[in-house]
Amino acid sequence: MDGSRTLGVDIGGTNIKIASLRHDGTVLRSLQIPTEVESGPAAALQRIELVLRDLMQREGMRTAELGALGVASAGIIDPVHNLVLDSPNLRNWERFPLAALLAERLGVPVFLENDVNAMAYAEWRCGAGRGTQHLVCLTLGTGVGGGLILDGRLYRGTRGAAGELGHMCIDVHGPRCSCPSRGCLERNIGAFAIVERAEAKLAGGRPSQLRDQELSPQVISEAAEAGDAVAAEVLRETGELLGMGLVNLANIFNPERFVVGGGVALAGDRLLEPARQTLRRHAMSLPAQTVDVVVAELGNDAQLVGAALLALERVTE
Amino acid sequence: MDGSRTLGVDIGGTNIKIASLRHDGTVLRSLQIPTEVESGPAAALQRIELVLRDLMQREGMRTAELGALGVASAGIIDPVHNLVLDSPNLRNWERFPLAALLAERLGVPVFLENDVNAMAYAEWRCGAGRGTQHLVCLTLGTGVGGGLILDGRLYRGTRGAAGELGHMCIDVHGPRCSCPSRGCLERNIGAFAIVERAEAKLAGGRPSQLRDQELSPQVISEAAEAGDAVAAEVLRETGELLGMGLVNLANIFNPERFVVGGGVALAGDRLLEPARQTLRRHAMSLPAQTVDVVVAELGNDAQLVGAALLALERVTE
Repeated sequence: MDGSRTLGVDIGGTNIKIASLRHDGTVLRSLQIPTEVESGPAAALQRIELVLRDLMQREGMRTAELGALGVASAGIIDPVHNLVLDSPNLRNWERFPLAALLAERLGVPVFLENDVNAMAYAEWRCGAGRGTQHLVCLTLGTGVGGGLILDGRLYRGTRGAAGELGHMCIDVHGPRCSCPSRGCLERNIGAFAIVERAEAKLAGGRPSQLRDQELSPQVISEAAEAGDAVAAEVLRETGELLGMGLVNLANIFNPERFVVGGGVALAGDRLLEPARQTLRRHAMSLPAQTVDVVVAELGNDAQLVGAALLALERVTE
Repeated sequence: MDGSRTLGVDIGGTNIKIASLRHDGTVLRSLQIPTEVESGPAAALQRIELVLRDLMQREGMRTAELGALGVASAGIIDPVHNLVLDSPNLRNWERFPLAALLAERLGVPVFLENDVNAMAYAEWRCGAGRGTQHLVCLTLGTGVGGGLILDGRLYRGTRGAAGELGHMCIDVHGPRCSCPSRGCLERNIGAFAIVERAEAKLAGGRPSQLRDQELSPQVISEAAEAGDAVAAEVLRETGELLGMGLVNLANIFNPERFVVGGGVALAGDRLLEPARQTLRRHAMSLPAQTVDVVVAELGNDAQLVGAALLALERVTE
């Protein structure tokens, strides 16, 4: 099967990415269409099918070669019934049998997977997590997501909802989160919290090139790169809070590696080095010694690559 | 093998428990000897061997019937090298080849296992966790420990140190813990924290039958049972903090069940009902809906039963 190719789909709240890839995870050709959430899942299904058929034609792929089709989606996926159960960014898509309908139309098995689970699986199989048995992935962005490879397998939990690492409370007296809890990791290190942290420092009157800018993690990261002390401090403090999350996860999972991805992770060592220091200082000694923290390697393709490889794994189980 | 019997050992900081049991986990005869930590592991090994041989003779068991011997121990166990790596209560026992020496003397394979892992495995196989695939166990006492059954297997992590659920920070601004971190679950709901909580309320001058008593979780639990409002409040607040730990673990693992054991859990619903309420209120909706919280069933035998069953499982792998 080495020369064989398959397809992967990643459905996000804004865009749908579709790509052809080799069974080793190498992406061959990649396309993107707007999700148009408001048009509903049936319309999207039509467009996904069209793009898939177009891609197959351009690549000279036959359906028989596909093996299976993997679809990554934001939200909680029921892996048994192949349905999106709960997805804040795809509200009216819930319980729509997208996988079943796509399977019927294309004549191949289709498997849905949570996008962060898919990302973790891809990084494990062919990215920054290669060669590990116990891997914890975190994605840092507006939300903070997680994916778990435990004992060499993707761990989904009893209803496919495991891995919500961003909704681990690290501050029981902290502010309410977007979830029903408070003081969550996401509430402390998500994009919104990072901007809030910068705003609080600016409100204190400190000079900074961040002043009067439209703040975002990227703007703050660029300012830190340009030598802005306030921006650097925001990243350091955020990194330390990320580190407390890693302390918890190290003590809970005793993993071999943390892989950190997502837009906010692009801040690199200004964020990750304080996280590593906090991890070494505060985790229990064996888990602290035996884990490293690395940046994800596969970028925005990780979700569709992981979904495609998971689908192949499931069809050959 | 249904009628077959085996032996289990549980080495604690104070006592060593040794029992004969059936392969279904039923304990037949149980003995206890003092650990005498200060006499060192070689002396303990002698005494363990004597008790084991005595028990086998009294039960009419032959070595061939044993299959394997399981030994539970506090601390971090290296499951590959069968050694205690780190155990605060068995300080000079670390890296002593107790399992290898016992195996040599008895002529059967001997497997060491962390005591909370063993407890979790026993509760899963023949206690309050029967029939689940994804089970999170917590033990509440002086320390707060954890054991994880994930995808129908005991999860140990990369070096056997996984499951330190008591050392999950839930209060990043909270007081230092006995571990290198701060605001840990154990620091909030361990026996010491429960007593501290009661003392703070008494210092506020409120009337209570706890006043002038030697405080312990058991004394507080009994006072609550007798209608003492301060004691009941201590248990409720402790239960709510336990609940925040369960919220995190529900979001991380999406387990089917939480099994809660250890001496502090004997406070029962005065502690567990506030924990359940916090869990339902603050966990994400799917994990909150699909998990229950129950009390451990096997009591103080769970560790040796789990160690014995795990040893049998490993020898037949």
